[in-house]
Formats: sequence, C-alpha cells, structure tokens
Amino acid sequence: MKSSRRYTLTLSCPDRVGIVAAVSSFFAQHGGWIVEASYHADTQTGRFFMRQEILADSLPFDSAQMRTKFAVVARQFEMDWQLSDSAQKMRVVILVSKQDHCLNDLLHRWRSGELEVDIPCVISNHEDLRSFVEWHGIPYHYVPMGDKAAAFEKIAALFDEHNGDTLVLARFMQILPPELCRRYAGRVINIHHSFLPSFAGAKPYHQAYERGVKLIGATCHYVTEQLDDGPIIEQDTVRIDHGDSVEDMVRYGRDIEKTVLARGLRYHVESRVLVCDNKTVVFK
Amino acid sequence: MKSSRRYTLTLSCPDRVGIVAAVSSFFAQHGGWIVEASYHADTQTGRFFMRQEILADSLPFDSAQMRTKFAVVARQFEMDWQLSDSAQKMRVVILVSKQDHCLNDLLHRWRSGELEVDIPCVISNHEDLRSFVEWHGIPYHYVPMGDKAAAFEKIAALFDEHNGDTLVLARFMQILPPELCRRYAGRVINIHHSFLPSFAGAKPYHQAYERGVKLIGATCHYVTEQLDDGPIIEQDTVRIDHGDSVEDMVRYGRDIEKTVLARGLRYHVESRVLVCDNKTVVFK
Amino acid sequence: MKSSRRYTLTLSCPDRVGIVAAVSSFFAQHGGWIVEASYHADTQTGRFFMRQEILADSLPFDSAQMRTKFAVVARQFEMDWQLSDSAQKMRVVILVSKQDHCLNDLLHRWRSGELEVDIPCVISNHEDLRSFVEWHGIPYHYVPMGDKAAAFEKIAALFDEHNGDTLVLARFMQILPPELCRRYAGRVINIHHSFLPSFAGAKPYHQAYERGVKLIGATCHYVTEQLDDGPIIEQDTVRIDHGDSVEDMVRYGRDIEKTVLARGLRYHVESRVLVCDNKTVVFK
Amino acid sequence: MKSSRRYTLTLSCPDRVGIVAAVSSFFAQHGGWIVEASYHADTQTGRFFMRQEILADSLPFDSAQMRTKFAVVARQFEMDWQLSDSAQKMRVVILVSKQDHCLNDLLHRWRSGELEVDIPCVISNHEDLRSFVEWHGIPYHYVPMGDKAAAFEKIAALFDEHNGDTLVLARFMQILPPELCRRYAGRVINIHHSFLPSFAGAKPYHQAYERGVKLIGATCHYVTEQLDDGPIIEQDTVRIDHGDSVEDMVRYGRDIEKTVLARGLRYHVESRVLVCDNKTVVFK
Repeated sequence: MKSSRRYTLTLSCPDRVGIVAAVSSFFAQHGGWIVEASYHADTQTGRFFMRQEILADSLPFDSAQMRTKFAVVARQFEMDWQLSDSAQKMRVVILVSKQDHCLNDLLHRWRSGELEVDIPCVISNHEDLRSFVEWHGIPYHYVPMGDKAAAFEKIAALFDEHNGDTLVLARFMQILPPELCRRYAGRVINIHHSFLPSFAGAKPYHQAYERGVKLIGATCHYVTEQLDDGPIIEQDTVRIDHGDSVEDMVRYGRDIEKTVLARGLRYHVESRVLVCDNKTVVFK
Repeated sequence: MKSSRRYTLTLSCPDRVGIVAAVSSFFAQHGGWIVEASYHADTQTGRFFMRQEILADSLPFDSAQMRTKFAVVARQFEMDWQLSDSAQKMRVVILVSKQDHCLNDLLHRWRSGELEVDIPCVISNHEDLRSFVEWHGIPYHYVPMGDKAAAFEKIAALFDEHNGDTLVLARFMQILPPELCRRYAGRVINIHHSFLPSFAGAKPYHQAYERGVKLIGATCHYVTEQLDDGPIIEQDTVRIDHGDSVEDMVRYGRDIEKTVLARGLRYHVESRVLVCDNKTVVFK
Repeated sequence: MKSSRRYTLTLSCPDRVGIVAAVSSFFAQHGGWIVEASYHADTQTGRFFMRQEILADSLPFDSAQMRTKFAVVARQFEMDWQLSDSAQKMRVVILVSKQDHCLNDLLHRWRSGELEVDIPCVISNHEDLRSFVEWHGIPYHYVPMGDKAAAFEKIAALFDEHNGDTLVLARFMQILPPELCRRYAGRVINIHHSFLPSFAGAKPYHQAYERGVKLIGATCHYVTEQLDDGPIIEQDTVRIDHGDSVEDMVRYGRDIEKTVLARGLRYHVESRVLVCDNKTVVFK
Repeated sequence: MKSSRRYTLTLSCPDRVGIVAAVSSFFAQHGGWIVEASYHADTQTGRFFMRQEILADSLPFDSAQMRTKFAVVARQFEMDWQLSDSAQKMRVVILVSKQDHCLNDLLHRWRSGELEVDIPCVISNHEDLRSFVEWHGIPYHYVPMGDKAAAFEKIAALFDEHNGDTLVLARFMQILPPELCRRYAGRVINIHHSFLPSFAGAKPYHQAYERGVKLIGATCHYVTEQLDDGPIIEQDTVRIDHGDSVEDMVRYGRDIEKTVLARGLRYHVESRVLVCDNKTVVFK
C-alpha cells in the first residue's frame, strides 16, 4: 500500500454541517480513491480538523490542478489547508550533540525504508558522530557552540541551504534562540526526556529521582519560545522502582526517548499532526 | 455531549468510490450534525465499514422516517446497515457463577451511569450473589446446572422473556450449547482469562504458570460454536514474574478481566463493533 | 500460602557489612522459614532497608518473645524496625465524598478476601453512600463539612475510637489539616487523579486537557502537610488522544485511580512500603 | 557503580532453612560488600534460587580462591553454582539474516557501553550487513545456507574458534539443528516475533492478522530442540487495531522485538537468568 503514490490533504475550518459531504463529494466526483480519512471537531475552539489520503492515480489531474480545483471548496468553508504528495519526500535535518541513541534509531529507520524522508545532513556541536553519519552517505556539519548566536545562525543557514523542511533536535541539549523558534514555527521537533509537564528544563532524570516517581517518561513536541512548553505530539512512560539509580533511569529512558521521537516524527512527516492552539490533533 | 440524543448508523458494503460522499451528503442535505465518524476498508474481504453518530435533534425527521429515507442510499451501495437510537437503551442480561469481580465492576459502572444500558436481570447457577444483585433492584434468577440442557433452555427463556439484546458471560464458567451460540450469534459476549489464542479452554492461569510466560492476559470475544475462538473484541496483558504463583496470577488477572470486559461491552453497546468474518472492526 | 500465619519484619539502618548475615542467622538458628526476603541499599542516604516474611509456625516462640530476642540484633546495627503479625489485621478507615469508584473497588476486594484488612467504618461528608456501605455490614458515619475544623476533629475522633491504623482518602476531595497530617504521619494514604508532580491541586483532568498531554495518570501517596507532595507509593498512566474530552479523561481516569489505590494500599497493609525521606522503598 | 569490579554468584539447591544465613555469613566474615541480592523459592520443584553481586575489592582473595572457599558451603547445601567476574566480559556471537533492526540495536548498545560484552564476530547467511558490521571493527563471516548441515557445522566451528559464550539469533530465520541445541544448551538465545505460546513457527504476524488479535508481541527465549518452546526469558506486547495491515504489524513488531531481545540478553549476560525446568527465574 505504501508503494502507491498518495496525496494527503489536511485542513481545519470553522465547524458546521456539510464539510465532510463537500470534501468527499469533491473526491467522489473525480473518482478519487480515499485510502484513509480522519476527522476531529474541537469543542473548545469550534474548529473542525480533517485529513484525507487519496491514491494519486485515481484522480484525473495532477497535484497542481488539484490545488486549483480544491481551492474553490476550501474558500467556501474558510479552510486552512495543505496538500502533500508522497512523491515529494520531506527533508529532515537532524541536530545532535554526543548522545547518539536517537540518531542511531532514526538513521536505521531511514536506511531500512521505514522512515520515508530525505536526510540532507546532520549537524552537531561535536565531531564524535561524524564517521557513523558519513558511513550512511549523509553530509555531517560540525558547528561548535563557542559563540552561540553565530552558531545558531550557521545552523539556520545550513538548514536553509539544504532546503530543510523539518529540524529534529535528537538530544541536542542546546536551547534554540527565540528568533529561530519563530522563524521555523511548527517545523522544529524536540525530544524531551521527561513526561511533560513534569520535569521540564535541565536534568529531568535527576529531578525524577529526587521526587521519587514510579514511572519516567519522554515527550516529543514542537519547539516554541517557551522552553519545553510547545504542543505535545507524543509521549510514553516506563516503570521504574526504588532500586533504580539515575544511571538506570537514563538507560531505560533512552529506549522510550527513541521510540517516542520516532513515532512523533513519523506522525509529522506523514502529515498526521495538526496544531490547534498549544495542542495537537494527531490522526494515527 | 453524552446527554444529547444520538442516532448511530453502522454499515458495511463492497468497497468503491463514493460511499462516504453519498452517506455524508445524505446527512448534510437534511442538516444532520455528525458527532463522530469512522471508516475502515478491509483489504482482505474488499468490504468497507462505517460508523456515524448523528445528533437526533439536528435532523427534521424521526428514526422511522430516517430508516425509510436512508434505505434508498443503502440499496444503491448494497449495504448491510443498522440504526440505533440512544433513547432506546440496550438490554444486557448478565450470567454469573460464583466469582463476582466482573459483575461487581459492571454493576458499579451501570449504577454510576457510565454504562448506559438496562440490566433486566442477572442469572446464576448459584445463589451466592443474590443479595448483592437485589440490593441494586435487579431481579436475580437462580438456574442450577444439574440438567445442563434444561438449564440452558431456562436461561434462553429468561433472556427472551426479559427482551434481552445482549448476553454477557461474566466469568460464567459454563460452555454455551452450540444451538444457543447460533440462535444468539453476535449477541453473546464472553470474557476469557487468557490472551487468546494462547491458553484456550480450562484453567488458563495454570497453563500460563506451567509455560512460564512473562505476561498474562484477558480476552473479550463474541461466543461462537468453537470454544474460545469467536471474533475478538478487546484484549490486554499484565506483567508477572517467576515469583508469582497461580493464585497471584488469578489476582492480577481479575483486574484485567474486568477492565477488558468493561471496555469490550462498552464498544458493543455503543455499536462500535462490526464483525468481519471471524474478526472485528472496533471504532473506538 | 496466604493462609499460613506469617510475621513480617521491616527495618532500616546505616548500611555496613554483615546486616543480612546477622538477620538471616538469627532466623536460621531458630529454624525460621523465610517466605520472602527483600533488600535495598539507598546510596543517597547510606541507609539499608530490609523486609523479611517468616512462617510463624516455624519459630519456637511467639511474637512478643521474638521482639525481645530480635531487639539484641537490632540494637547492634542501630535498626529502626517493626514486626507485624498476619493474625492481627490492619484496621483501615475509609474517607469518601460522593464519587464511589474507589470505595466500590476496595469493598469488593475486601469482601472477596483479596484485601486482608478490617474496615471498622467508612466516613463521609455526604449521605449518598450509606446504603451501599451498610449492605456490607460496615458502620457509616456522616460528618458534614460546614465547620471544617470541627468536622476534621470529629473524623479524627472516629478514627481513634475505631482503633484505626490507616486512613484512606478514597477521592475524599477535602484537604486534611496540617495538624492531622502530622498526628497520623505515614498512616494516611491519598489517591490523586494525576501523574504527580504534574497537575497537583484542583481539577487535574482539566489541567491535563488544557496542556494537551497524550497520557493521563494517577498517584497513590502518603499525605503530608505539603499538598500532593508526600512520598509516592504507586503510579500509573493511560493513553488518551485529542478526541477525548475532560469527561472521557474522568472515565478513563477512574479505572487507573482505583487500581493504583488498590495496589498502593495492598503494599502498605502488607508492610511492603518503607519511607526514606520523601521517597518510598516498595518491596513488591 | 557499574565501573567497580564485581563477582556474581548464582546458585540453586534444595530449599531448607539456613541457606541465606550460610551464604551471607560466608561473605560477611570475609568483609564482602553485597551490592545486590535476590532469592526465589520455587514451590513446584522445591528448589531455592539465589543471586549475589559482591564488590570484588571488598574481599581479601581473588576469584580462584573464592571458588575454593565457597565450594565448602556449596557442598553442604548440594548447590549448583556459578561465579562470574565482571572483569571477564561474556563473548556474544550474533547470527543474522537480512533483517537488521535487532543487530542495529544490539551494536548500538554495545558501542555506547550499555551492553557490556565482547562481540567477537557476526555470522550471516547473506552479505548484506557486512559493511555495517565491519564499520564497528567486528569480523563478519558469510556462511551460505545451500547445504544446511554443513552451514551449521561451519557456524558452530566459528562460534568455538571465537570462544563464544552465547549465541544470539537476532532474527536469523533458520532453525538450529537439534544436535547444536543440545551442544549449546542454555547458551543460545532467540527472539521470536510473537507472544508465545501464540503463533509459534513461521509468519507469526500473518497468523496474528488472520486471528484478529488486538495486541501483538515478541518473546526472547533459550533455544531447545522443540521449536519456539524453550524457557522464556522476556516478553512484551503492543496494541494494534483492525486498521493495521500485516506490514504495519511487522513495523510495530520490530520495536518490541529489539527491546525484548535487548532486555533478555542483558539479563542473560548479567547472570540474572536461572533455568528451572522449562521456565526461568529472572532476577531483575
């Protein structure tokens, strides 16, 4: 199924009667074969969210024509909408420091074909992971953090040069400046090693150890100017007990960090995540 | 949201272009407000499954008229379809033996209003639970199992007299005769105390102990003539270890049995379960 | 196994070589049959924690004599220690408001023999649950909350009159005054309906909904003067998604609240919980 | 803590009074600092199991002397016992086919220092993974399966030449001949991609799909002559639903296969697994 080319339409608009009828009729009248369809009506904001995955070959026109035609429906319902095409892979730039468990996991998913993206480069403030990244045939850029402002400008420049769509902070351990949070809003994904909102900020496993919690967690979220406070995409927890040291927590934590980031990133690249204020709608 | 009267339409039909458009347009043209919508295309059977929950007050006709009108759409797409009305509560008859953890759990959910059904009676092959059931104001019928054939005919007669829609085997520990499995196909729900297909039949916790598994489970399924082989509605597992005796497993098992049965029964009474051959589509 | 009378010895002392040897030799020389043995060395505090469950019939003396004899060993290692006897059931007083899912769950575990305690009475600030509690043959005391100080003094008096060992706040929804927190330190157990330290205080499901978390949780902890900040005994989480309203969270939450409280209380009554500063050692 | 050299003593013997006292007194009289201690009395077999981790530097003799001295205690209680020394890393040979998610995971844990073993070589019936393995500086042996008997003799010869302690079948997809199962009993670990005993044998995800289960699993076990029937070390499950194809299950399954194998192998290399008939005692 994954091998067929698909268009994915995501949209949100004020909730009212007839939205699904209008969108599904639009596709039906052109013979569009809908592979997956998801809906959500948010009662707080009064907005309606929708995601449709359509077989590209079932439609008699290309994506440019489809955009033109669908714009008529979209205007009628005041829709915010995007159309992605599985033939155009998303370009994901990965930022790492020295810890490589998330990087190792993402690169394996990428080379096995599970994670269908392009990875134009990996950027790091250390040289440690160069050889591993380059073995994959992926360019590795070393950007030391001596002058933070300059370093982040360099990172942004690299991201832009490589036509990056999404920036993943795979345990990067550095805080993105507010200006870049705004410039790339909704395009920067972080993995935080706690079950947010518990233990935001530095050394969450130490905080968890001090508090004596019986589960630890990890959170994948969009980066915003407020540290560890952006819209949450995915979370998970794992059981610990009194016998586990901070080092044990770090070890257990790595396993959930990498699966939570991998799931969250997959939802993002498959256009399954729609942001609604500071929350997310995730159509799994 | 739960307090508003709703119609729930469930259907299946051969998969083709235009089903969602036809159904959603039908509702849209009458001003129907769709509260929840779910779809599934089964690639093995080529059938399409659908569930729609509509606010009753948003439609200009009653359920009888709606049936007449919708029949036109249904015929066009060769749909098997049902319409339920939240104003007509499902009537659930519970069969128990001596173990009462599932009964206690279901009755609490019923009296707190979480499980929106009528319970016209409880039937048991023992007298032990009479006082507890009658405290709830629910009739209790004692049917001893000396003559099994006669006992099951009595049970069926009670179920029919009480206009039962669904029969729940809440750890009943007796095997329903094939004739009743056929007569009430798709209407009898069992909770089996193992993760099926592992450990079907008698004493599953003993079997699990002997095999040395590291998790035990529970399975809620429709009863068919093949013992413990009907379509699975819901399952869950819980971790055990070498230190747990059969008695410990029984204790842990009770907690998953009751939650798995409660979830499975809720899906059933909310028309969230559609049977597809020997499997289920569960629209949560 | 549960039917045999057992002594349970719990202790903590400064960590050093020879503690286990001394304690196990003490039992071995008297023929004591150890059913369960657990140890923990806390690296932060340098203290050693231990729990031993011994078959009473395997020892040639009664618990009073055992206390006298063991005191010699205890003095040598500067132990804080307790000895409990399974023949002396712990007396658990339950405080409830109107929500009864935890109460219903605990009373079922009690009447089925799973929870081996005495429940001398249930106290509530409402009359709603009187009939259900009294059906169990348990006295029910109504203490209205108009004058909070007087009400809590009345609750304390009832607890003392009934020789309560442990006070369980089973969704009591009222904050215990600091004076009672101190008077009954280590003897009052609360269930909080969030994964602490996230969402302490009022309306945690509303807080969780606002933040957009992807899992919700429950926490069983000892009550201290700091609200929702006492030593955590047990926690668990359950997955939710964007489609779940606050009401859905409340419904899912009830299921984890009752299992987390039931597990935490069982650990407590079986002397499996040892407090270490603001954390717990739980020997499962 | 992990950096200090430790001895790990594991043993089993007929259960009786005084075992713990004898062993702990043996260590105490020599000043031995016990880091971790675990016990289990198996009621079915009447055997007692024990694991002790001792700081090597706390003892006044080396491991050879310790063996001589401890043999006296062991003889007295008819113990089967082993002593391992953290300074002697276990030598783990990995067998793979084409699927590399488990290999990728294990090699990452090894190169990050989390999995404290030596990996003298990787053996495969395909050339696909040579470059990845050799990047790690680990020898890669290609053994084609045309003549199965000869191939397995070659594998056994390589394992022996490399002084292998443990052989890991990391999704090797070939059945070990009975003769090798016997020759390396208790030393060969397999990961099976189902929750055993459900779906033993070939294509377990297809079997799971056909049966319509709501969870899928993975099982790490010792290999015996009976296919997929050896003592289970570790298992886990993950939730799926009607919308998941076999390909989706394969994808979800990879994540639990690798964590279950990694946990099971860690327990094995840290001498935490003791076999008791066809079951395991796992001291976590």
